[in-house]
Amino acid sequence: MVLAKVVGTVVSSHKSQKIEGIKFLLLEKIDPVTMNGKGDFVVSMDSVGAGVGEIVFYVSGSSARYTSATEGRPSDSAIIAIVDYIEKDGVYTYEKNR
Amino acid sequence: MVLAKVVGTVVSSHKSQKIEGIKFLLLEKIDPVTMNGKGDFVVSMDSVGAGVGEIVFYVSGSSARYTSATEGRPSDSAIIAIVDYIEKDGVYTYEKNR
Amino acid sequence: MVLAKVVGTVVSSHKSQKIEGIKFLLLEKIDPVTMNGKGDFVVSMDSVGAGVGEIVFYVSGSSARYTSATEGRPSDSAIIAIVDYIEKDGVYTYEKNR
Amino acid sequence: MVLAKVVGTVVSSHKSQKIEGIKFLLLEKIDPVTMNGKGDFVVSMDSVGAGVGEIVFYVSGSSARYTSATEGRPSDSAIIAIVDYIEKDGVYTYEKNR
Amino acid sequence: MVLAKVVGTVVSSHKSQKIEGIKFLLLEKIDPVTMNGKGDFVVSMDSVGAGVGEIVFYVSGSSARYTSATEGRPSDSAIIAIVDYIEKDGVYTYEKNR
Repeated sequence: MVLAKVVGTVVSSHKSQKIEGIKFLLLEKIDPVTMNGKGDFVVSMDSVGAGVGEIVFYVSGSSARYTSATEGRPSDSAIIAIVDYIEKDGVYTYEKNR
Repeated sequence: MVLAKVVGTVVSSHKSQKIEGIKFLLLEKIDPVTMNGKGDFVVSMDSVGAGVGEIVFYVSGSSARYTSATEGRPSDSAIIAIVDYIEKDGVYTYEKNR
Repeated sequence: MVLAKVVGTVVSSHKSQKIEGIKFLLLEKIDPVTMNGKGDFVVSMDSVGAGVGEIVFYVSGSSARYTSATEGRPSDSAIIAIVDYIEKDGVYTYEKNR
Repeated sequence: MVLAKVVGTVVSSHKSQKIEGIKFLLLEKIDPVTMNGKGDFVVSMDSVGAGVGEIVFYVSGSSARYTSATEGRPSDSAIIAIVDYIEKDGVYTYEKNR
Repeated sequence: MVLAKVVGTVVSSHKSQKIEGIKFLLLEKIDPVTMNGKGDFVVSMDSVGAGVGEIVFYVSGSSARYTSATEGRPSDSAIIAIVDYIEKDGVYTYEKNR
């Protein structure tokens, strides 16, 4: 899975019937040490109610069809967790409620 | 899913029987902040009637076989949505009817 | 799918039984605007009778098992079309019989 | 599979039900010659009881659902082995108990 | 499939039960024109009895579970052929018995 920040929303009225009712979030991949954005973006289907500004991780590939929100749908990216904290080498590089 | 602009068409008369009748669009990946093309191209199967100049997002991998147009076919990229707008950090970086 | 030029052949006498009888072509990915090779190569299984010098597109991942030639075989790349022409922004960047 | 070092932990209390009870480890990919980190990180599900500081290899894609810990779950990365040693061109570039 | 040279071995005594008995080879991807290593490594499961120094190609993704050695196992890379020769634009860039 890959760590990213929710930075926005993508809206489409003309789309495959199979993705009706899904929320598409714009994610920017982050470096988990500096927590800076990498300028690399992906559109991900939300399965956990994530909001703009939150740090999440998403799953790619066929496993993006294995959440309750995306089962059987043409998805290659699904947010599966909102991150509380990231700890690297004994140091917190990210804490949500700080 | 990845954001891209439809920039052209790829035509083949000699191809796998399993992809007869499919439209192949040439997509250029874009940066959703600047909306500039990245010079990185992919051939994608159209499942939504997208046209040249439109901003779309496409699905990759096995999920590219999960649209009505591509089911059971050897596809690794399918356009599943025409984008109306992209909003990043409270600002619209793209609006279709502008 | 990705556009590439057939540039050669890879031959193996000692291989998995499941890929006996398959032709392995060496492909170089191309830029569809300049039509130049990118110096990036892949070995692909041929399902359409492609020959050296032709521009093709191939499918990657699990869908590479969805051609008549590769079904049930350990393939992650299969050529599924020989390209007649590529049109970008109203201009032909490639025409086969020119 | 890809070689990496376990460098930390990612914790989430708000996540897909399907990944409850799984441990998420932060991995940094390594160069197996110099054993240096590459500054490229992935969140991986642990199936072998790996700990911080250990060298492991993980499996990506659909096969990340083929371990006892991750079966049927939305996983695209699972640690499947703790490495004892790496030998390249007759030289050990890594030995665990050194 | 991707061309690579077998450059070593990775050994693990503590691993997923599902990969017991499998040999893990360290591969370095090569440029098939110059035959130089690219400094990019992958751990691959051997299905053909490849040895150090040999040029092989391996299959990635779900198809890495489609060899006799890896069926049903968490594998994302399997060696499926030992290369005899590579021919590019009418010239042999590699011949095994030279």
